[in-house]
Amino acid sequence: MPENPLHLLMNPRSVAWVGASNNPDKMGSIQVLNFLKSGYKGRFYPIHPRDEQIFGHKAYKSPESLPEAPELAVIIVAKASVAPLLEAFGKIGTRRAVIITAGFKETGADGKRGEDELNRVAEKYGIRFVGPNCIGVINTQAALNTTLVQHSLGPGPLSFASQSGTYVTQTLRYLNAKGIRFSKAMSLGNEANISIVDALEYLGEDEDTRSIILYIEGIRDGRRFIDVAKRVTPRKPVLALYVGGSDAGARAGMSHTGALAGPDYLYDGIFRQAGVIRVQSIEDLYEQGWAFAVQPLLKGNRIGVISNSGGPASSISHAANKEGLQLPVFSEKLQAEIRNVIVGHASSANPVDMTFDLDMLKLSTSIPEIILKSGEADGLIIHGVIDLSIMMTDADLSRAVKLPEIYQKPVLVSSFFDRADRYVAFYEDHGTPVFEGPEKAARGMANLFRYSRIRERKHSDVPALPARSGEASAMIAAALGRGQRALDEYEGKRLLAAYGIPVTREKLVMREEEAIRAAADIGYPVVLKGCSWDIMHKTGKGLIQLRLQGEEQVARAFRAIRSSAGKDIGVLVQEMITGSREFVMGMTRFPGFGPVLLFGLGGIFAEALQDTAFRSAPVSIPEAQDMIGDIRAAGLLGEFRGMPAVDSESLAGIVQKLGFIAMLHPEIAEMDLNPVIIAGPQPVVADALVVIS
Amino acid sequence: MPENPLHLLMNPRSVAWVGASNNPDKMGSIQVLNFLKSGYKGRFYPIHPRDEQIFGHKAYKSPESLPEAPELAVIIVAKASVAPLLEAFGKIGTRRAVIITAGFKETGADGKRGEDELNRVAEKYGIRFVGPNCIGVINTQAALNTTLVQHSLGPGPLSFASQSGTYVTQTLRYLNAKGIRFSKAMSLGNEANISIVDALEYLGEDEDTRSIILYIEGIRDGRRFIDVAKRVTPRKPVLALYVGGSDAGARAGMSHTGALAGPDYLYDGIFRQAGVIRVQSIEDLYEQGWAFAVQPLLKGNRIGVISNSGGPASSISHAANKEGLQLPVFSEKLQAEIRNVIVGHASSANPVDMTFDLDMLKLSTSIPEIILKSGEADGLIIHGVIDLSIMMTDADLSRAVKLPEIYQKPVLVSSFFDRADRYVAFYEDHGTPVFEGPEKAARGMANLFRYSRIRERKHSDVPALPARSGEASAMIAAALGRGQRALDEYEGKRLLAAYGIPVTREKLVMREEEAIRAAADIGYPVVLKGCSWDIMHKTGKGLIQLRLQGEEQVARAFRAIRSSAGKDIGVLVQEMITGSREFVMGMTRFPGFGPVLLFGLGGIFAEALQDTAFRSAPVSIPEAQDMIGDIRAAGLLGEFRGMPAVDSESLAGIVQKLGFIAMLHPEIAEMDLNPVIIAGPQPVVADALVVIS
Repeated sequence: MPENPLHLLMNPRSVAWVGASNNPDKMGSIQVLNFLKSGYKGRFYPIHPRDEQIFGHKAYKSPESLPEAPELAVIIVAKASVAPLLEAFGKIGTRRAVIITAGFKETGADGKRGEDELNRVAEKYGIRFVGPNCIGVINTQAALNTTLVQHSLGPGPLSFASQSGTYVTQTLRYLNAKGIRFSKAMSLGNEANISIVDALEYLGEDEDTRSIILYIEGIRDGRRFIDVAKRVTPRKPVLALYVGGSDAGARAGMSHTGALAGPDYLYDGIFRQAGVIRVQSIEDLYEQGWAFAVQPLLKGNRIGVISNSGGPASSISHAANKEGLQLPVFSEKLQAEIRNVIVGHASSANPVDMTFDLDMLKLSTSIPEIILKSGEADGLIIHGVIDLSIMMTDADLSRAVKLPEIYQKPVLVSSFFDRADRYVAFYEDHGTPVFEGPEKAARGMANLFRYSRIRERKHSDVPALPARSGEASAMIAAALGRGQRALDEYEGKRLLAAYGIPVTREKLVMREEEAIRAAADIGYPVVLKGCSWDIMHKTGKGLIQLRLQGEEQVARAFRAIRSSAGKDIGVLVQEMITGSREFVMGMTRFPGFGPVLLFGLGGIFAEALQDTAFRSAPVSIPEAQDMIGDIRAAGLLGEFRGMPAVDSESLAGIVQKLGFIAMLHPEIAEMDLNPVIIAGPQPVVADALVVIS
Repeated sequence: MPENPLHLLMNPRSVAWVGASNNPDKMGSIQVLNFLKSGYKGRFYPIHPRDEQIFGHKAYKSPESLPEAPELAVIIVAKASVAPLLEAFGKIGTRRAVIITAGFKETGADGKRGEDELNRVAEKYGIRFVGPNCIGVINTQAALNTTLVQHSLGPGPLSFASQSGTYVTQTLRYLNAKGIRFSKAMSLGNEANISIVDALEYLGEDEDTRSIILYIEGIRDGRRFIDVAKRVTPRKPVLALYVGGSDAGARAGMSHTGALAGPDYLYDGIFRQAGVIRVQSIEDLYEQGWAFAVQPLLKGNRIGVISNSGGPASSISHAANKEGLQLPVFSEKLQAEIRNVIVGHASSANPVDMTFDLDMLKLSTSIPEIILKSGEADGLIIHGVIDLSIMMTDADLSRAVKLPEIYQKPVLVSSFFDRADRYVAFYEDHGTPVFEGPEKAARGMANLFRYSRIRERKHSDVPALPARSGEASAMIAAALGRGQRALDEYEGKRLLAAYGIPVTREKLVMREEEAIRAAADIGYPVVLKGCSWDIMHKTGKGLIQLRLQGEEQVARAFRAIRSSAGKDIGVLVQEMITGSREFVMGMTRFPGFGPVLLFGLGGIFAEALQDTAFRSAPVSIPEAQDMIGDIRAAGLLGEFRGMPAVDSESLAGIVQKLGFIAMLHPEIAEMDLNPVIIAGPQPVVADALVVIS
């Protein structure tokens, strides 16, 4: 694997800076002042056409006049000057750049041409760059900060790749106020050259990064994202906030960095597939990312909650339960130990409610340690540790903040106070995250648990693509040759069957006598269907005749279908599969993601219920099983009302094969298998639409 | 209607205080010092057995020695002394008290006896009190604050009734930091006498309260809560955080104030019924409550979003869309007006993204006014107004904060900065709420819209109960007399039919010939079912035979059922209703709520999908229709796959009648109508279980 381009970009031994002047009111100057203040230790070369020096540093007229090829060029000049400047740097041997200047692809066709020119120059010289239209990068370990805001708390173990510059800079003060410290942070702008996927890969390899957060408005290379994330997430937690999945969200993103958005459900699916944990707010992204960065993993879902007030204890407990965590009632032995410490009518069961007890040493240390030591909880949430003037106790939290490491169990704190409170600051400065609100702490703990499940997932490589079926290729080619825009049901199912997908036994007939003969061969009851590629939806048009018993019914059905169709179309005589569990499966293509697979609840309620899951193809069998288990009605897959459990490997196999078919036959635009009926434990495809182009 | 007891309690002209000493380290003293600091203007009488004065105020030995009967007594003494003290106050004529002392019902049976004693004394003297086990009350208009924390910002239009004292006091600093100001706040403790429902009623009438927030761990008188809330919510917004609905949440609440919790889905339903907006976090409760208190109502769901950075604009837009709000693309005319103001490549479509433009006057005032004036948005969310030192512009926000009133449209602000930022403080001090995070602002706006829908709801009184059916009463009595614990299906349906609920035509038979005759009368196809009260679930036991055609099939089915049952049970011959839409309805009883009605998706998927809605009986027809529309699969109720729309009034009528039946026949413990099949547009009950006791 070639070295990730960000290794050098984030750790340059020398930096040239173009676009700063000595006028401290200009944006470029604010930025360079911030850069200098950040304490960068490498060689620094400001470039200015006239000034001899910039804020005390010797300035150079142009790249050509530099004493060496700087490892990184930071460019904040007028749009028209960017490409020539990049070329000049390329000529002297600089191979990395951060292009902050805006006005490229995000502004329309003209800007797109400008961006293409940047790419042309970069390719010519082998330059890799971040931007344009970004706010730059921060590497606290290298004291490198090209943005305009200080990261004042020093290096930390959390890293951030963002398609918004604001979230890297405008929030830095807010993050500082919460004690959240970055290792690396990158605003990726238009991703003309280095993408958020490159950034994820880089952060996955970066030794100073313990957890990764992503802000995403759209991913252009979706499949690579999945492949990279699947390598990273078993080792490091990755959290993502995706905001492009709604109409307005996509519109906002488009105008912003020209990112390519996809629907929300698609990203839900690929995040699940990739092991990326999706959050729904920027606050959760930062705060939970930080918790992952500083706390041990949560090994089970049994949580202890301790507080000195009932409201927050109830709120945490309720939110934790709703998120799928358990609050076990502590054993009598453990409760007795706790009651030794707390006052009379407090509760020791879990949540432990000390009631109005202001002994902060008990709340922060003694009781937590009793619980962590007991082994009855896998993690702990504490609310109420505060150092208010009205409190007459004082506590030394130095042991409290060591408990997570000692017992290798995460401890999260919830508080309504910020760093102005001495204890809050102590927690934050010693690696215990403080969530501003009980529910946030509970959500954070729930995601720690989700991540533990992700780490436990069975890894399995996707098997190699099967050989392409000549029969299938020929069928598609012939259909396209006849001007069809879809295969008819009979062809569609032959195509599926060619790849081993179980379909109904059936025969295509053109005459009534044939239909009767076919029915006898197949065995009653049978189904008759009108079969023609241009009939894509048969329901409600008299084109499906179910549960036919005997020759007379078949003959009548045959005539009825022909009459409904109004022409002598083919008629499909099909075995009648009975089974009350029905599902749908499908394949469609999204730009950047290639074939995307769908699995969902079928039957007539399917449309009204929208109970579906998505994945990007190809999928391994465990991935497909995971997907199938994602629908709300997953309970149907087990033993259900006297029916046997569905053969989940068979069902997953169909999903996997749909992906293979899509990859082997790019002429297939969409597939729709509806219904897939469960007969006994086995799935059988009862109808199929294959759209081609 | 008698005057609400809180009118006097919250506005006393004189207050006696028992439980404060001159030792400033004691809790009671901290509390009285806070009370004095709050600036109470009425007459104040500390009571102390020995000291002559308390913090400069003349002290009295006992209630008897007071110069008048104080209108309010605040009691923070040892548990055993509370009842005698209350009696002493009762004797001198005091009629209101706040009892802060804990150790009553929340501690178990012994404490419960102590609480019963308080109630006995209160009843004897007509005393109404808040508590015990509470932190007291705040009325900023009367400068009354019995809690231990200052509310330093002065009176505001938001009021709070809470089953947690912490949320009234520990969060006050946090609220002060967000500029959120209470009118009234009450910690209700064990609600031995004055309940959260009383508090809601009081706040509904209180002229200084514009919006109401509730923190709930459990409601004891659920039906009265609904009735009171239904009167309040068309006039004032009510938001609630309920945390008792999960196992651990309920356990936490129980140990805390002994509140009675009910499952989450029940509260979801009754909040909907009552017009109460449910939130999921304490932060949302405060922040959204404040937005309701200070902003105009949102009249439509078209939202404008404006920012100077893409990330927050995308986040707000995405979150708003997900919550059901629309971000209309602005008209060409409006966009042209906006483009006159902003720089070249900014976006004017909505969200309006000024990109990196630091002109705060444009962001805060000019563009918002253009949008509000245009009529193309019903409300506005602004992100990015900050007064950082790096910003070289200055803005006067005085017009910005007037825009909501001028255009009668809500404006919400999102920011990553707190009151340390001058602009944030200005907004907060002038009635524009500042949400800490884009998604919170979007959620707030979405709830403003939900409330506008609540105000538009058709009000209709529940009709008077119908007369009790003698036939039904007799049937229940006879069944109980026979030792049945349920009616059999035939009886159950006769009971439903007695109240006009449509059920399948059917006949109960004991002999094969009768079955054949009945089938002929009813008309083929028919269903045969084993009918006995102790067979509560027939599926999978051979006791249901569907789609029977002709005498032979009926005879065979009759014998099969008898054989499966293993005894000569009655057999029900029933018309076979066909219809692919199936629902379930039911009734069960929850302590405090009386009969609770269920409506849900039926069919074999019902169990796996758990798609249900709940309401408390009785319900009006519009209420029942609203309930029916709450299920996820509500799309099935309209025209669907060639089937006509369901007669929603008939369906709602069944729900309503179930409620009436439950109220008229308290011997009915549960009813389960499953399935209710939609035949054509009409619902028919195909099976019914009525549990009696």
